[in-house]
Amino acid sequence: MIFYDCATAPSPRRARMFIAEKGLEIETRQISIADREQLSDAFLAINPRATVPVLVTDEGDTLTENVAIATYLDARFPDRPLLGTTPSEEAQIMMWSAIAEGQGGAPVAETLRNSNPAMKGRALPGPANFEQIPELANRGLARVKLFFGTLDRQLQGRDFLTGDNFTYADITAFVFVDFARIIKQRIPEELTAATDWYARIKARPSAGL
Amino acid sequence: MIFYDCATAPSPRRARMFIAEKGLEIETRQISIADREQLSDAFLAINPRATVPVLVTDEGDTLTENVAIATYLDARFPDRPLLGTTPSEEAQIMMWSAIAEGQGGAPVAETLRNSNPAMKGRALPGPANFEQIPELANRGLARVKLFFGTLDRQLQGRDFLTGDNFTYADITAFVFVDFARIIKQRIPEELTAATDWYARIKARPSAGL
Repeated sequence: MIFYDCATAPSPRRARMFIAEKGLEIETRQISIADREQLSDAFLAINPRATVPVLVTDEGDTLTENVAIATYLDARFPDRPLLGTTPSEEAQIMMWSAIAEGQGGAPVAETLRNSNPAMKGRALPGPANFEQIPELANRGLARVKLFFGTLDRQLQGRDFLTGDNFTYADITAFVFVDFARIIKQRIPEELTAATDWYARIKARPSAGL
Repeated sequence: MIFYDCATAPSPRRARMFIAEKGLEIETRQISIADREQLSDAFLAINPRATVPVLVTDEGDTLTENVAIATYLDARFPDRPLLGTTPSEEAQIMMWSAIAEGQGGAPVAETLRNSNPAMKGRALPGPANFEQIPELANRGLARVKLFFGTLDRQLQGRDFLTGDNFTYADITAFVFVDFARIIKQRIPEELTAATDWYARIKARPSAGL
């Protein structure tokens, strides 16, 4: 297998944490988004969508979405499951990862990409160029604040998003909460359940990679 | 189990098709988005996110995301699998459903919600109100056209998005392609692989529900 990573971006960090938590070692190649290497002919031949992470599997599949990489690795290497072991657990984990993507990750990305001068003309990932929309940056900021509240409510009485076990859902939410620093947002300290959860995950070795 | 549906909206249609393709019969309640019933106190007590579909399971879980409903039902009722039976199949199906959501469903929704006068002040689903952003409607239109090309390239030499079998990925992509009529977009007829795929799925009984 080959894992295409980028040390500075949140989406590949999700796959990197997942691989580490599974205890797997996979040959890794860095793609520098700062150098626009994801738009190079060499990388577009691997992933025409021009995004990382990418996992090329032993079967020869090219997986370009975090949910696909997680699904593949958890099914192929069932030790240390991160996607649950019962229908109920599996569903809750997929649900909370999707909520964290849509209500946490998407707004952070909208704010960053539509306000950062370095991303002018690159307001969306992918091979096509889109102009920035300043109102979208403002809307993203409002939504990230709502997301912190959503997290805190779910974490009342729970160590992790779906219960007693650390899972893929926690990876997704943690990575986007951590990345929100780039738009100067962090969990308000009065949200103690979410603040404690964040500290709990930050302390895991996989979070320091 | 109880399935909260809305006959006019694309997201619950995905779950409705999934349930039908699994051959399941689940007690169903209609939530009228036209009447803003999703924002009623009674429904907010079920799903504070104010979205459909929702599946309340026999274990008592409230599942509010399509990926969670599909994951639960396919794990609990393994006959007629729609999420694959090998790590490679499972990953490809999750990948293509995620691509269809992000590159097809999201742009259609952005265009509709940011241009339709009836959705003024309701540019996003959920309990919070957001104003329309006209540039986002234009951007969505451009992205939907790109998505039709993505679909057509993937369907070269394949009957369904991930190979020989109809899956959850086809449901996701079909529902959003079909819903694009609301922003007056359809697969260009010169994209014959995508056009044929669309006709193939449209002919399934589950597409008529």
